[in-house]
Amino acid sequence: MNEKLTHFDTAGNAVMVDVTGKQETAREAVAEGWIRVGAEAMKAILEGTAQKGDVLGVARVAGIMAAKQTPQLIPLCHPLPLGKSAVDFHTDEAAGTVTATCTVKVSGQTGVEMEALTGVSVALLTIYDMLKAIDKGMEIGGIRLMKKTGGKSGTFCR
Amino acid sequence: MNEKLTHFDTAGNAVMVDVTGKQETAREAVAEGWIRVGAEAMKAILEGTAQKGDVLGVARVAGIMAAKQTPQLIPLCHPLPLGKSAVDFHTDEAAGTVTATCTVKVSGQTGVEMEALTGVSVALLTIYDMLKAIDKGMEIGGIRLMKKTGGKSGTFCR
Amino acid sequence: MNEKLTHFDTAGNAVMVDVTGKQETAREAVAEGWIRVGAEAMKAILEGTAQKGDVLGVARVAGIMAAKQTPQLIPLCHPLPLGKSAVDFHTDEAAGTVTATCTVKVSGQTGVEMEALTGVSVALLTIYDMLKAIDKGMEIGGIRLMKKTGGKSGTFCR
Amino acid sequence: MNEKLTHFDTAGNAVMVDVTGKQETAREAVAEGWIRVGAEAMKAILEGTAQKGDVLGVARVAGIMAAKQTPQLIPLCHPLPLGKSAVDFHTDEAAGTVTATCTVKVSGQTGVEMEALTGVSVALLTIYDMLKAIDKGMEIGGIRLMKKTGGKSGTFCR
Amino acid sequence: MNEKLTHFDTAGNAVMVDVTGKQETAREAVAEGWIRVGAEAMKAILEGTAQKGDVLGVARVAGIMAAKQTPQLIPLCHPLPLGKSAVDFHTDEAAGTVTATCTVKVSGQTGVEMEALTGVSVALLTIYDMLKAIDKGMEIGGIRLMKKTGGKSGTFCR
Amino acid sequence: MNEKLTHFDTAGNAVMVDVTGKQETAREAVAEGWIRVGAEAMKAILEGTAQKGDVLGVARVAGIMAAKQTPQLIPLCHPLPLGKSAVDFHTDEAAGTVTATCTVKVSGQTGVEMEALTGVSVALLTIYDMLKAIDKGMEIGGIRLMKKTGGKSGTFCR
Repeated sequence: MNEKLTHFDTAGNAVMVDVTGKQETAREAVAEGWIRVGAEAMKAILEGTAQKGDVLGVARVAGIMAAKQTPQLIPLCHPLPLGKSAVDFHTDEAAGTVTATCTVKVSGQTGVEMEALTGVSVALLTIYDMLKAIDKGMEIGGIRLMKKTGGKSGTFCR
Repeated sequence: MNEKLTHFDTAGNAVMVDVTGKQETAREAVAEGWIRVGAEAMKAILEGTAQKGDVLGVARVAGIMAAKQTPQLIPLCHPLPLGKSAVDFHTDEAAGTVTATCTVKVSGQTGVEMEALTGVSVALLTIYDMLKAIDKGMEIGGIRLMKKTGGKSGTFCR
Repeated sequence: MNEKLTHFDTAGNAVMVDVTGKQETAREAVAEGWIRVGAEAMKAILEGTAQKGDVLGVARVAGIMAAKQTPQLIPLCHPLPLGKSAVDFHTDEAAGTVTATCTVKVSGQTGVEMEALTGVSVALLTIYDMLKAIDKGMEIGGIRLMKKTGGKSGTFCR
Repeated sequence: MNEKLTHFDTAGNAVMVDVTGKQETAREAVAEGWIRVGAEAMKAILEGTAQKGDVLGVARVAGIMAAKQTPQLIPLCHPLPLGKSAVDFHTDEAAGTVTATCTVKVSGQTGVEMEALTGVSVALLTIYDMLKAIDKGMEIGGIRLMKKTGGKSGTFCR
Repeated sequence: MNEKLTHFDTAGNAVMVDVTGKQETAREAVAEGWIRVGAEAMKAILEGTAQKGDVLGVARVAGIMAAKQTPQLIPLCHPLPLGKSAVDFHTDEAAGTVTATCTVKVSGQTGVEMEALTGVSVALLTIYDMLKAIDKGMEIGGIRLMKKTGGKSGTFCR
Repeated sequence: MNEKLTHFDTAGNAVMVDVTGKQETAREAVAEGWIRVGAEAMKAILEGTAQKGDVLGVARVAGIMAAKQTPQLIPLCHPLPLGKSAVDFHTDEAAGTVTATCTVKVSGQTGVEMEALTGVSVALLTIYDMLKAIDKGMEIGGIRLMKKTGGKSGTFCR
């Protein structure tokens, strides 16, 4: 088996990797993703920022809370005392997309990529939920890690 | 405000829609999404099905459980006594993708699209988690509703 | 022991009351409570409605989600497929109070008072959390059931 | 926007404050609140301490557990490895009140006021739940921070 | 593959069984288990019933709440609106055992064996937790289904 | 009251012990338990390892995730940032038993016995759930702590 596959033991069984020997360092992860929506749904989102049904405000709260729920969702993910979680949105009316960015920080023995990716995913799913009465054809994509700092494996930047 | 935006009241405030007057009918939703992985990660997945580190087996369990967690993740989503939740995978070695399909059923007063979409998302995030030591450049996309039956709004098919 | 104390068996042990023999009817509960804040905190809340730090928007989402979490918080409370959950706020600048009202509905075998009361409590605690950097002397009070309809015990109105 | 409003970024969006740069110190918070009950309900509570339906025993467990659930309830609250959580009750038969006090401690980068306030709130809601068959007119109030030590902002005492 | 293994599809993949076609009937399950403790721990338990450290009272609440958490713990278990959950204890001083019995009822499309078994397990684990400072050699055993009624498969009695 | 009963204060009330003064050390706990199953169920388990319905794979994931849920299940248990969680199985066809072993590690101020015991219990309950269509007479037993290292009380070995 691939030796880098740390989520399995030598017998191939799933395991939550032992990180107790690792150093506690400052770690940060930034993830991104988008949802593509139709014109009517986009209008509803943009009006929301003008305080008539704040789709992005609700989605932001959902994303921040989901980052904290990550170890209950991703089976082999370590529970961590997150030090920061934030979700930002960028709306591109021409392209018909809302891009979500989630930034998570921790002082800990392992990284927070999964927290950032989960925060992005749930924020986008929440947008879907709030607009699905208007548009059932929306699509979520582009969910990926943008940046990761701290820890032995060092900095990753897309 | 858009009248179809049922997740807001007339003042534009977020609200969990009242479904108590709706009929209890059989409902089903199918959602789909994919993760694009590199050659080394794909190899690890394919070997996993040969019982050396079963990435897809763990991701399947994560997706099924996440569907049940949906109302705790998506703020305005109704809690429902789900009657079925299943996650399937299709691996396309040439394209370098694993496609996840989540099917959820319920006898209830509202639909299960969000449960199916959440199941797909968490299944794919779990694949990411288990392979991220090999490949940090993976991308998740194509998350969308494929089919929806039951309820007043009728059948949706992509 | 008091025979009305249905949360205990005849030996005085805590028990989640058997409601399986009860009829499934439409039920609704409305609960209320307030938080008293200082002038600076009140200003921050009122500005928030003008979209610079939407304290009440976040608190509303927290209250709606908390109503769904009630059976995980209140030991002898029944899990129910809630059909509606909504939180409204009324700000009284002169009195220095924000009043929260939570309305919960269900078609079920038992009532949703605790869900409404929990929704109110967590919405108010969230306001506290978001303003505590400005004002540590805030006080939460007046948490009580305003109305309850449906079920054998009939309508209650304060 | 008010600069002390650390739960919002400069654009006014909700954010879980970054505490990763803060020092890990011993922190403690004590919160209080009461529930006012009728004579019959008070009798049931007092008899409970004589082991026939221990209302306060169940409420104590509920409050301790709720303190641990705080980051899942309060959107912008940090998850913390709590080092202590305790709930005490004081019954004033003449006034018809039960006062709950919740004490929470942690060695961490941020305080535990919200945990103490949430513990108090859920303990009191649990008393309500167990007595609501006797008395629907109970009221919860006086929920406030009594003391807070540790951290940069120093000691707060009401 | 064994056709009775309903938790797997024909390809052998784990699946939450489809129960949406099944009839909603009254169902009940009773499960049992014991913990064997040393003399000093037994003394502490027995004194507890005399209101000085109520081990069984806390364990009862834990078991009742755990029954409600079952679908979040057992991957392929259906979420159900439980209608009753109760935990009883029988202490046998001579044998050095405490036996826990958990009874769960529901009107639903599938049974509640897992809820009863989970309630028993967590009640016993809680006893262990509260006494482990006295006795680390305690053992939990005899966890099994005692009775099951309702549903197509009919009554099971041990 | 027994002075070693740290989960109660001097008045006999349940309390989550204060560990904030304790040293953060490396701690490990190993727990074990078994499930006794009939011949047909054993056959299904053994075939599962040959990839037709992987009972133990699902149970392993359930046990690992349950260890992380422990503080939400065991009322007086401290939340901890677990550094490792693993579940292993040993199948004894002749005896008709599957033995589960759960190993949990943490750098923390208190131990992880309860996490290891909870991981074992939920892994075994999951096996029960997946095989109960074949065999309702299965029994779970032998749940006990095998080893514990770290902390002031030192090493425990059965």
